[in-house]
Amino acid sequence: MLKEGWLWGLGSGLLLLWLGAWLRPAQGGRVLVMPVEGSHWLSMKVLATELAQRGHNILVLVPETNILIQSSELFRTETFPVKISKEELSTSLKGFQEGVFKRSPALMDIVIQVGRLVNFTGTQVEGCESLLYNKPLMQKMKEENFDLVLTDPFLPCGPIIATALGLPVVYFLRGMPCGLDMLASQCPSPPSYVPRFHSGSTDKMTFVERIQNFVMSGVELGLCRIMYASFDELASRYLDADVTYQEIIGRGAIWLLRYDFTFEYPRPLMPNMVFIGGINCRKSAELSAEVEEFVKGSGEHGIVVFSLGSLVSSMPKKKAAIFFKAFSMIPQRVLWRYTGEIPDNVPENVKLMKWLPQNDLLGNPKAKAFITHGGTHGIYEGICHGVPMVMLPLFGDQDDNVHRVATRGVGVVLSIHDITTETLVDALNTVINDSSYRQRMEKLSAIHNDRPMQPLDLAVYWTEFVMRHKGADHLRPAAHDLNWLQYHSLDVIGFLLFIVLIVTLATFKCCALCWRRCCRKLQKRKRD
Amino acid sequence: MLKEGWLWGLGSGLLLLWLGAWLRPAQGGRVLVMPVEGSHWLSMKVLATELAQRGHNILVLVPETNILIQSSELFRTETFPVKISKEELSTSLKGFQEGVFKRSPALMDIVIQVGRLVNFTGTQVEGCESLLYNKPLMQKMKEENFDLVLTDPFLPCGPIIATALGLPVVYFLRGMPCGLDMLASQCPSPPSYVPRFHSGSTDKMTFVERIQNFVMSGVELGLCRIMYASFDELASRYLDADVTYQEIIGRGAIWLLRYDFTFEYPRPLMPNMVFIGGINCRKSAELSAEVEEFVKGSGEHGIVVFSLGSLVSSMPKKKAAIFFKAFSMIPQRVLWRYTGEIPDNVPENVKLMKWLPQNDLLGNPKAKAFITHGGTHGIYEGICHGVPMVMLPLFGDQDDNVHRVATRGVGVVLSIHDITTETLVDALNTVINDSSYRQRMEKLSAIHNDRPMQPLDLAVYWTEFVMRHKGADHLRPAAHDLNWLQYHSLDVIGFLLFIVLIVTLATFKCCALCWRRCCRKLQKRKRD
Repeated sequence: MLKEGWLWGLGSGLLLLWLGAWLRPAQGGRVLVMPVEGSHWLSMKVLATELAQRGHNILVLVPETNILIQSSELFRTETFPVKISKEELSTSLKGFQEGVFKRSPALMDIVIQVGRLVNFTGTQVEGCESLLYNKPLMQKMKEENFDLVLTDPFLPCGPIIATALGLPVVYFLRGMPCGLDMLASQCPSPPSYVPRFHSGSTDKMTFVERIQNFVMSGVELGLCRIMYASFDELASRYLDADVTYQEIIGRGAIWLLRYDFTFEYPRPLMPNMVFIGGINCRKSAELSAEVEEFVKGSGEHGIVVFSLGSLVSSMPKKKAAIFFKAFSMIPQRVLWRYTGEIPDNVPENVKLMKWLPQNDLLGNPKAKAFITHGGTHGIYEGICHGVPMVMLPLFGDQDDNVHRVATRGVGVVLSIHDITTETLVDALNTVINDSSYRQRMEKLSAIHNDRPMQPLDLAVYWTEFVMRHKGADHLRPAAHDLNWLQYHSLDVIGFLLFIVLIVTLATFKCCALCWRRCCRKLQKRKRD
Repeated sequence: MLKEGWLWGLGSGLLLLWLGAWLRPAQGGRVLVMPVEGSHWLSMKVLATELAQRGHNILVLVPETNILIQSSELFRTETFPVKISKEELSTSLKGFQEGVFKRSPALMDIVIQVGRLVNFTGTQVEGCESLLYNKPLMQKMKEENFDLVLTDPFLPCGPIIATALGLPVVYFLRGMPCGLDMLASQCPSPPSYVPRFHSGSTDKMTFVERIQNFVMSGVELGLCRIMYASFDELASRYLDADVTYQEIIGRGAIWLLRYDFTFEYPRPLMPNMVFIGGINCRKSAELSAEVEEFVKGSGEHGIVVFSLGSLVSSMPKKKAAIFFKAFSMIPQRVLWRYTGEIPDNVPENVKLMKWLPQNDLLGNPKAKAFITHGGTHGIYEGICHGVPMVMLPLFGDQDDNVHRVATRGVGVVLSIHDITTETLVDALNTVINDSSYRQRMEKLSAIHNDRPMQPLDLAVYWTEFVMRHKGADHLRPAAHDLNWLQYHSLDVIGFLLFIVLIVTLATFKCCALCWRRCCRKLQKRKRD
């Protein structure tokens, strides 16, 4: 037996050595990470941390005034001063949080959304300027001799720095407003079945919906120009070249897209797109003793997990009262990320927490339902762990997200403005007690989790690939060398139509000439 | 130490158990394989064999008269009688082999190519009919209760059987004439940068080349109708439904495409396409003692590997003499797959073989150059092992293939019709002695081999995926529900133009009416 143990040891040791060689990091690359604040950072952090753990030297650029980006033992951070103070950021954030609970007139909704986005990007561009024109810091970045920039093109700092330093860049994102990511990567998006932002359509549209989607795809192009004008101006000014932001980000080597087709609708793709939807979902860790006890105590009824995302953890008192009352009427226990005013009569089955171990709770077998605002992180965790959802979209892409989930029959959508105790209780009872929701969710979850490689491994692989080969030029489509007219062959069609016209005219003229001569001859004969 | 060994044993045993669980087959699925003859089968066999080795029950349907499809210990085969006899097949093959060495007038070349294809498909459709209308066999297939059909849609039998049996289907192919694969999978192929079959263009085209490519993309659509008319008719007749072959193959769950972007030009893709280019390349096995000795004896000059593919192993005497003479003038040793007439004065450095261990030879460090007809199998083996090529395209897609390789600067193209001893020696000397060829090839090879998963593992994974989930519906684009007009939003554009016309006309009418009234009033006033 001992001998066998030795043999096992030797054989397996060799196997481990081989595995180790296979999984080795790309000999410690140097990566500059330029993240975007808020939930965007939460999933990019997963990749930055993993890269650091695999032996790469990671430096994260952090604005002095920030919400969620914190230093880590695993990677270096470099903070840079920005114009906005902590108080201003806090006030702006509070205003934003209160704003999402105020109903805007239906028609104005999209205008308000775009307005908010323009306002937000304006502030961020200011922060970006503080970084780009910080000469000592930029000089330091140059001297760091990075191999790669990892960034989210949602904001222009990362792509502009990468261009300025002449470094290959890997993007990490879910998508960009106006579909700029698809435009920049030369990815076709036929409006006949790829629904546009805020269109309320799925990929299967009626004729009227297709008209609406087509018109929106045109409107989007116009809105994009307004929205990204400040990015274009900054890029042109800083790089001293006549470029648009779309051209700048079109140079990206790899697009790590937080996409998965259990959530997104199937659509055309490009070869340099890598799909890492659900990268933030991981195997559930153990809960703290206190939370574990609360969860266990829920018995057969199980728990409901409730969070409105990283930015919104409170709500107006009256609104909160609806939730408290509804929760008192269900047999499940509720864990709620809530930092707002706490009433006296909090039901016993409700536990309020400042920060929720959301992934670990959703991965717990007791999780029966997930009340979410419909951010992509939450939705992917819900799908990954197979928990049906009640969704209350607040802003941005959340309306579209929840619509996608609802059409798959694994969640119910409620309006945060119209919500009542009854509708909430009804919705919860539906997703918990109507077994079809769980069955569909389990099927969706099984498909989502059935991937040849885990999203994090895939993201690491392609990031290292770009470092190994100094880019991914072999995946870059030649469409980048064409302008809009050329790409759509409109110049060719125009030329061919011109030729057809010339030939037709020439033929017509010849015929007319022949006809006239014949007529003349006939007239002459008659006269003779 | 002993204790440590035990610990190693235990730890590694657990790791192996985990690995074993992770790599387990999908509990023995039942797969019906309907291959296409010739080199098509050579790479599909790799997947069929691997599936069998992983515990799946594989049945391969084989026409009684065939060239390369043989039975195996690993999978079952079921032969079916076809109308064509061995003699007829042999004569037809001989005619084909002789035909490729006959020059056709330049302008007629494409017509001849299409003619050959139509002729070939006609024969194959006959074979397919023999299978489909073999009632006892088809009943047996029904009773086999397969989970999946694995087929190459190059021929219609597989997709039609899958439809008739109501089974999910996985396609295994490099591509289809006229780009029917792209049309059927709803994959956009902008003619502005996706070169068409036989266009001689790369993905970077001049205006004139774009015109040519645009016109060819139109011509292709017409040619396709002719070429696939017999497929359409057979499918409609057999399935008793009004369907086209394009619609039939559009139902495929997964497209395993022998594509890789070190060889193909980057282009749009669809979510259910999986890229397994180079699946036929494997680690080199040991050579037989005789071959090994010949290779070793080549010294520092190394060897040249020469094969014109699975179908063409001989050539006219005069043509062969050019090769023999050229080989006598180079210091390398040559291994040539040749079954033609052997002259008396075969140079000493040439070894003629009936079948070449091509992959193993190319993987040998002594391999300095590869003379190939430019079939995709050979090209992928060349890229995989990093051996520069001299290419002699004979038929089909080979013209396009060698053009792709040549534009990457890793090979030289010669015409089989115009070849002389001098041009061949020059070409060999160039790719062997001009180190830039090897450097570029090594770079290309490194990129090709740097993939997150090996093509074979990927192919197995997605085949098993389709069995586990009875399809891959979540990857199916909604574009399949749209007709051509709808897909391109032409109905929407038409409707919007109509509305604009109506509004313009109405406005014009209103203005005219107002103008007339104003005029009348003015006239009245003047009169008054």
